[in-house]
Amino acid sequence: MNNKGLLIVLSGPSGAGKGTVVKALQKRQPGVRLSVSATTRSPREGEQPGKHYFFLTKEEFQQQIDQGQMLEYAEYCGNYYGTPAKPIEQWRKEGHDVLLEIEIQGGGQIKEKQPDSVGIFLLPPSWKELESRLHGRGTEDETTICKRLETARKELAGVCGYDYAVVNENVEETVRTIGAIIAAEKQRFSRIKETCDLLKGC
Amino acid sequence: MNNKGLLIVLSGPSGAGKGTVVKALQKRQPGVRLSVSATTRSPREGEQPGKHYFFLTKEEFQQQIDQGQMLEYAEYCGNYYGTPAKPIEQWRKEGHDVLLEIEIQGGGQIKEKQPDSVGIFLLPPSWKELESRLHGRGTEDETTICKRLETARKELAGVCGYDYAVVNENVEETVRTIGAIIAAEKQRFSRIKETCDLLKGC
Repeated sequence: MNNKGLLIVLSGPSGAGKGTVVKALQKRQPGVRLSVSATTRSPREGEQPGKHYFFLTKEEFQQQIDQGQMLEYAEYCGNYYGTPAKPIEQWRKEGHDVLLEIEIQGGGQIKEKQPDSVGIFLLPPSWKELESRLHGRGTEDETTICKRLETARKELAGVCGYDYAVVNENVEETVRTIGAIIAAEKQRFSRIKETCDLLKGC
Repeated sequence: MNNKGLLIVLSGPSGAGKGTVVKALQKRQPGVRLSVSATTRSPREGEQPGKHYFFLTKEEFQQQIDQGQMLEYAEYCGNYYGTPAKPIEQWRKEGHDVLLEIEIQGGGQIKEKQPDSVGIFLLPPSWKELESRLHGRGTEDETTICKRLETARKELAGVCGYDYAVVNENVEETVRTIGAIIAAEKQRFSRIKETCDLLKGC
């Protein structure tokens, strides 16, 4: 009935399990398309343009910013990273839901530009569990983990700008919950009123 | 994590299929409790107090109104009908979701008093289908059906105060969608922030 797809913005602190959830969600809801970021850095081996990133020159990237074509962007180590609006808008027009996994600052920029986007904030079950997950990776020393926890603490404050908060205790359950959020959001009165002929004039 | 149950308010015009949906929902989600109305009219044969209605005297009903204990009420043919707040609040505190099937005017009163309630408006697939459903009952003459359609047209304008609009094309699908809305609403940031220790101070 409502043909425009949703824009789902998924964020969360380091250690919340975003990557795992996105992979599981893609399996369970293959119709949901994953947004592709743009960057000015060079492609790494095996990276395919349009799949892993849209690779742009600095001039092209700047032009897209100037034309309001970046939903959000940031500079990092001398390179731009951002979310091009056009492909997302195209997919949504075609009726596809689009998932955007993004850090919290970028998520805030998107909510400002696209108030009809659906913000989902992924939470670890507890501080204890977050700590144990960061340790569990086994690749970083104590100082790095400590810094990460400090960052996570700051990042958690960003949840206030999101519509939903989901505690990622169990990946399967989290993915089911996100599926329910997607199904529910499609029925929001604010989305439906424009396409339902029964509601013309409301 | 969030222990307080939801208050789900289900409304819709005559012919939208509320009764069938409520019955199917109770089978699928037996944990959801059905709110019981209060009335000053006499019990009919087979009606059990506390199951079909709370039967009150006019004085008792008036006292509950005066004490702000009626979430909504209306007078009809010389009797009061209303929704007592206390049993709903008690169930919600115990963690049960409560479903309230109510006509649209009452639904508006409830949203005012309980802004955290979840309003779901049930829609017939189309005017044509609504007409055919009203004819299908076979119990009313043309004038009655015509009046009902006119009422439905007016009632539809009430959808604006509801959070969700669900087109009841197929009962099973409608019940699944309402299940998704319930699951999603439990994850609303505004509900979760009070009970999640990770979010203290947000």
